[in-house]
Amino acid sequence: MHQALRAGRMATRAEHLLKRILDETGAMIKSLPLQSTPAESGMLVYRKVRELTGVRDPYKAVKAAHIKEARAIYPELIEIKNQSEDELRTAIRIAIAGNVIDLGINKPLELVKDVRRTLAAEFAIFDYRAFKARLAEAKTILYLGDNAGESVFDKILIQELKRKVVYAVRSAPIINDVTREDAMASGLAEVAELVDSGSAAPGTVLEMCTPDFRQRFDAADLIISKGQGNYEALSDCHRQVFFLLKAKCVVVAEHLGVKMGDIVFKEHVPQSRRPQAEMGIS
Amino acid sequence: MHQALRAGRMATRAEHLLKRILDETGAMIKSLPLQSTPAESGMLVYRKVRELTGVRDPYKAVKAAHIKEARAIYPELIEIKNQSEDELRTAIRIAIAGNVIDLGINKPLELVKDVRRTLAAEFAIFDYRAFKARLAEAKTILYLGDNAGESVFDKILIQELKRKVVYAVRSAPIINDVTREDAMASGLAEVAELVDSGSAAPGTVLEMCTPDFRQRFDAADLIISKGQGNYEALSDCHRQVFFLLKAKCVVVAEHLGVKMGDIVFKEHVPQSRRPQAEMGIS
Repeated sequence: MHQALRAGRMATRAEHLLKRILDETGAMIKSLPLQSTPAESGMLVYRKVRELTGVRDPYKAVKAAHIKEARAIYPELIEIKNQSEDELRTAIRIAIAGNVIDLGINKPLELVKDVRRTLAAEFAIFDYRAFKARLAEAKTILYLGDNAGESVFDKILIQELKRKVVYAVRSAPIINDVTREDAMASGLAEVAELVDSGSAAPGTVLEMCTPDFRQRFDAADLIISKGQGNYEALSDCHRQVFFLLKAKCVVVAEHLGVKMGDIVFKEHVPQSRRPQAEMGIS
Repeated sequence: MHQALRAGRMATRAEHLLKRILDETGAMIKSLPLQSTPAESGMLVYRKVRELTGVRDPYKAVKAAHIKEARAIYPELIEIKNQSEDELRTAIRIAIAGNVIDLGINKPLELVKDVRRTLAAEFAIFDYRAFKARLAEAKTILYLGDNAGESVFDKILIQELKRKVVYAVRSAPIINDVTREDAMASGLAEVAELVDSGSAAPGTVLEMCTPDFRQRFDAADLIISKGQGNYEALSDCHRQVFFLLKAKCVVVAEHLGVKMGDIVFKEHVPQSRRPQAEMGIS
C-alpha cells in the first residue's frame, strides 16, 4: 500500500486517482497468496499505478538524478579502489555501498563521505574466499542489477572482475530498478553486455524471464545478484549464486540469519549440490 | 493496513488469520470515502480484527502495563506540579506529556526524566489565557480521554481544575484508547464522573455518541479534548472546545498550521460564533 501510494504520488497529484490506486491495490491483496514474493506483488502494484495514471515510468526523474549524482563521484570511487590494498574486496564494498547510501539528498562531498563510512562497515556474512575460488575458474559472469544509481557503483566491481560480464536489467520500469536505458546512462555498456532478463518485477523472477535469459542464467560460470529484490526472487533457486545485499526488512534478515540493516555477501549453494555434512548450516 | 496488522498481531499468531485480516481490510478501503476520518476507518479495521480473531481487546495487556507504569510515577508527577510556580499550567503540561512520552519501554526513573524533558517543550499554540478566562466562569467540565496510561496523567490536570469533571471514555475497546475499565484502573473514578461517549471509534465521533453524551457535550461549560483521535473527530464541531494534543501526522499538523511533532493547546471557536474579523485566522 505504501509503495502504491509512493509511486502514485510520483505519477500524479490528482487525489481521486491516488484514492483509486489505493482502492484497487487494497482489493488486490485478497488475490495474492501468502507465498507470493514482494517482487511479484510489487509488479502488480506497479502495473496498477501505470494503468490508472498512464505514466509508464514514475521514477524516471528520480532515477536520472541518482545516476547523475553517482556519476559525479565515480572518479573518486575509482580512486578509492585503486588506493586500497585488496582492490577486488574494495570493489565489492563499493558495489554494496551503492545499495546502502541514500542518493538524492546529498552533495558530492557528503556522498563520498557516506561511501567511505559504508566501506568501513563489517559484513555480517562475507563469503569472499569462496568467491575468489569461483572467480579464478570463471570465464562468464552474470551480474543481476538492482537500482538505478547503484548501477554506477556496479560498474566499478564489474571492471575489477576482469571477465566477460553480462549485466541483467529489468525489462520494464519498476520502482527505481535499473532498466536498459538506466544502465546505458550509468555507462555500463562500456564494461558489460546488457541483457533484459524479461522480468518486469522488482527482482529476477525466473518464471517471468525469457528463455534466452534463463539459458544464460543456467550457463554462467558465476552469478552475482545485487539487492534484496533479487534475493527474494532467487534465494531458493536451483543454482549457485553470490548474493550481495543489505537486509532491508525483517523477513529477509531472518531468512539470512542476520540483523536488519546488515550487509551480506553470501554464496548460495542449492540443496542438491550441497555435501551431506553441510545440510542446514550454510 | 499497518494498524490492522499491528492489532492483528496482538490478537493472534496464526498467519492465515493475519492474512485474512489484511485481505478483508484491503478490500474495505474501496468502501471508505476520502472524507472519512481516521476515527471512522480505525473503528472498521478494529471491528474486523475482533470479528476474525474473536479477541475483544487485543491491547488489553499493553494498556494494563501502561497504566501500571504511569501509576508508578504518579506521586512524582504530583510533586512536580506542587513545586511549580503555575500549577494549572504545569498540570496541562503533564497531561500532554502523557500523550508524548512512550510508555512501555522505560523504567520509572527514565520515565520521570522523559516527562521532565517534555515539560520543558514549547507549545506551538498555547491558548492559556483564553482557557483561564473560560475556566473562571465554568462550573461543569467535560474531559475527553485519549489513551490508557495517558489517562493517569489526565488525573493530575482534572484535580487541578477544581471543578465537577465528567471524564468521557470509549464505549468499547479500540486500539489503546481508554475505556471505562481502563479509567477505573487509572484511578479516575476518584476525581471525575466516568461516562461512555457511545463512540467505539478511536475518537469522539458525535454521530456515534449516545443522546445522553451529546446532551452533555452541548451543555458542558468547558470541554477539554485530549489527543489526535478526538481532534480529528471534532476539529470542525459546532461548539467551543480546547484541544490538547501532539500533532502526530502531517495532515493534522497542516490543519493546525504547526509542524509534525508539535504540541498544541488550542481553543476551537465554531465558525458561527466567531466575530467577522477573525474569520480564517484562528
